[in-house]
Amino acid sequence: MRTLVSDIAKSIGKEVTVAGWIAKIRKLGGISFVSLRDRSGIAQIVVEKEAHKLLSGLSTESVVEFTGKVKKEERAPFGAEILAKDVKIISPVSEDVPVEINKKELRANIDTLLDNRPITLRNPEQRAIFKVQAEVIRAFRDFLSGEDFTEINSSKIVESGLETGGAEMFPVSWFRDKAFLSQSPQMYKQIMVGVYERVFETAYAYRAEKHSTARHLNEYLSLDFEMGFITSHEDIMEMEEKLLKYMMKHLEKTCSREFEMLGATIPKVGAKIPRMKLSEAQKVLEQEYKVKCAGAPDLDPKQEKLISEYAEKKLESEFIFITHYPSKKRPFYTYDDPKNPKETLSFDLMFRGLEVTTGGQRIHLYDEYLKKMKDRGMDVEAFADYLMAFKYGMPAHGGLAIGAERLTARLLGLQNIREASLFPRDINRLRP
Amino acid sequence: MRTLVSDIAKSIGKEVTVAGWIAKIRKLGGISFVSLRDRSGIAQIVVEKEAHKLLSGLSTESVVEFTGKVKKEERAPFGAEILAKDVKIISPVSEDVPVEINKKELRANIDTLLDNRPITLRNPEQRAIFKVQAEVIRAFRDFLSGEDFTEINSSKIVESGLETGGAEMFPVSWFRDKAFLSQSPQMYKQIMVGVYERVFETAYAYRAEKHSTARHLNEYLSLDFEMGFITSHEDIMEMEEKLLKYMMKHLEKTCSREFEMLGATIPKVGAKIPRMKLSEAQKVLEQEYKVKCAGAPDLDPKQEKLISEYAEKKLESEFIFITHYPSKKRPFYTYDDPKNPKETLSFDLMFRGLEVTTGGQRIHLYDEYLKKMKDRGMDVEAFADYLMAFKYGMPAHGGLAIGAERLTARLLGLQNIREASLFPRDINRLRP
Repeated sequence: MRTLVSDIAKSIGKEVTVAGWIAKIRKLGGISFVSLRDRSGIAQIVVEKEAHKLLSGLSTESVVEFTGKVKKEERAPFGAEILAKDVKIISPVSEDVPVEINKKELRANIDTLLDNRPITLRNPEQRAIFKVQAEVIRAFRDFLSGEDFTEINSSKIVESGLETGGAEMFPVSWFRDKAFLSQSPQMYKQIMVGVYERVFETAYAYRAEKHSTARHLNEYLSLDFEMGFITSHEDIMEMEEKLLKYMMKHLEKTCSREFEMLGATIPKVGAKIPRMKLSEAQKVLEQEYKVKCAGAPDLDPKQEKLISEYAEKKLESEFIFITHYPSKKRPFYTYDDPKNPKETLSFDLMFRGLEVTTGGQRIHLYDEYLKKMKDRGMDVEAFADYLMAFKYGMPAHGGLAIGAERLTARLLGLQNIREASLFPRDINRLRP
Repeated sequence: MRTLVSDIAKSIGKEVTVAGWIAKIRKLGGISFVSLRDRSGIAQIVVEKEAHKLLSGLSTESVVEFTGKVKKEERAPFGAEILAKDVKIISPVSEDVPVEINKKELRANIDTLLDNRPITLRNPEQRAIFKVQAEVIRAFRDFLSGEDFTEINSSKIVESGLETGGAEMFPVSWFRDKAFLSQSPQMYKQIMVGVYERVFETAYAYRAEKHSTARHLNEYLSLDFEMGFITSHEDIMEMEEKLLKYMMKHLEKTCSREFEMLGATIPKVGAKIPRMKLSEAQKVLEQEYKVKCAGAPDLDPKQEKLISEYAEKKLESEFIFITHYPSKKRPFYTYDDPKNPKETLSFDLMFRGLEVTTGGQRIHLYDEYLKKMKDRGMDVEAFADYLMAFKYGMPAHGGLAIGAERLTARLLGLQNIREASLFPRDINRLRP
């Protein structure tokens, strides 16, 4: 029976068998000191005599099993070490790893980091990043399941896109047909509101944007939900507030060690996340930061940073909702504000300087879709499947999409979004 | 405040507001009897007087809000009905739905069913199918999280495939490069065993197989896990046994109503699912069913049905593991049986006549990969990223992939696998 290294202190004075990767090995005379890494942590093993000889020639990352008595040792991780009697080599490594991964912090530029992902991900800080991401996604699903949402899985192979109608989409050869990779599950999640009222999906989405920035991925994990019988976009923002509170509590419970290791703090979500209309935000930026931006349809990256800074300093919140983006610049399905049809009941959520969510209320009446699409010169026939849902009755509804990598990056203070993707893809990267 | 129709019996004698889709409407003199569907079920509404007039001209699927007093009524669903005083039309429908969806059973051929998915999914039986599927996936994740597995999300855009090296894969135009849709997360989940030891992923996989059968989807939801520090493929089968037990218990708790509605039964998972080597299974097929198949590398669909039948009748199990498939016919990464290198430590799980899982132990030593790949004439350079994981130390490991649609279809007795996919894709279908 294998014991995880985090459990050895429970067996002081007894013999245990542990197995893992050699993170460090130091030889001193007839003794080897091994730091052994398994999924639970890193433990100290002292190897003497015959067993010690078996380790000669082994490089770090060799996979080894040790059997021996556990001794109390306050200075060792987990308060104990193992005096190994038996060694079994599971997978010997003879070459040194190309990147030093067994130091706490991995010193490599972004390309070296990503080119060597099969190895660099073994670094404790790298492991911590994706442990946090896994728990972010789990919290998203668990919270929504508890709120009576049903998970859906929609096709990623589509004939066209709601957002851009085929522009900036990746072509796929589907047998003899031409198709595209889905740029969002928008069409499907709206259709599914007609079925379950409340749905969510966690899956990759694709944007063939040519720019290569530290903020964009061409394949990104979209955490989507959509819900019916709402009064306005306010209901969606309230659901996101509750979700974020749940998520941060969940991260405190499951990932405190990871946040500490990465020198990051779990944000507080106040009773109510501040809300500000885009036009108000632009006034603040003009008055407080002398940035000329009134009338622009969106905030640029610099302005997103500044309005976040303002929210943190003046409103005591690391989150801020920016609402009421202009109708012209939002997709056709966005719901116009009945009080001012030039604005929409839409929002973005800024978190630590970056937009991490886009959402809002959608049009739900068939006739309004027809009118909006004709006004925009769109081909109504091409959207027949989508429109079928509205032709046969849909409630007022809305939803949002959270970029999982963006949220992870801002939670952990990662500079480049690629650091929050296990195997990122961009215009220059198709591997590993 | 909206009340869900399943909760109205808690408010007998009081006034409530309910909202949903009109499933049926029957007019009798000055009264309308409405069956109102929301996410919780279908309730009976009696509408009189002025309110009744507002319903004139409305077809089924109109979205309507009713306010009125709840009256005890034993014969109504949920033991109560609502006497509606106020009506608010949220989304009027004027045309009849193209498929009759508000009968219990939806009578439509498979193409009509799928062509009209935005509407046909609203049928109670259709809703039940994907509710069950959502809970199958949830149980998969919850069980594995409890067993210390970490969720991963690997890229679906790859340069080549481990299984076929590019054959039967869908080409993607990735900017100026040529790539493919991933046919399985195999490479990534093995790499990630080197990081977390135990990982799982739930995501679409793609197979460009040209045949169009009732058993195959070109885009299918693959429930994958992979785990390190195993002794043999037996550990993987044991983990699947525990998983299936957990899953069936979870379905009993969450989906009894859905199984009942669909006339399906939740299978019992015995203490130990029977195991049989492929060669033994072939002997049974010859002796019991006079089917000549000894020496064949696999079971054909008919043989899968027969061996399942045998397991149910003679071994009292709706599940059976078939093990030790020949080395020649399994992918290069499959672990050969040390006792007989012509056979592998691999398995398929048959359930109610269909293969629903493929799994096994994988090679973990770098040198063995090099040898196996050279023996098979493979281009080792093309797999450099994959091999990096093994070059730098990997434990003995293995895993499996469950086809979510296949499992759902067999659980619920669906004839065509497409019925278990929300928006299926095949050689003839790219929409909705």
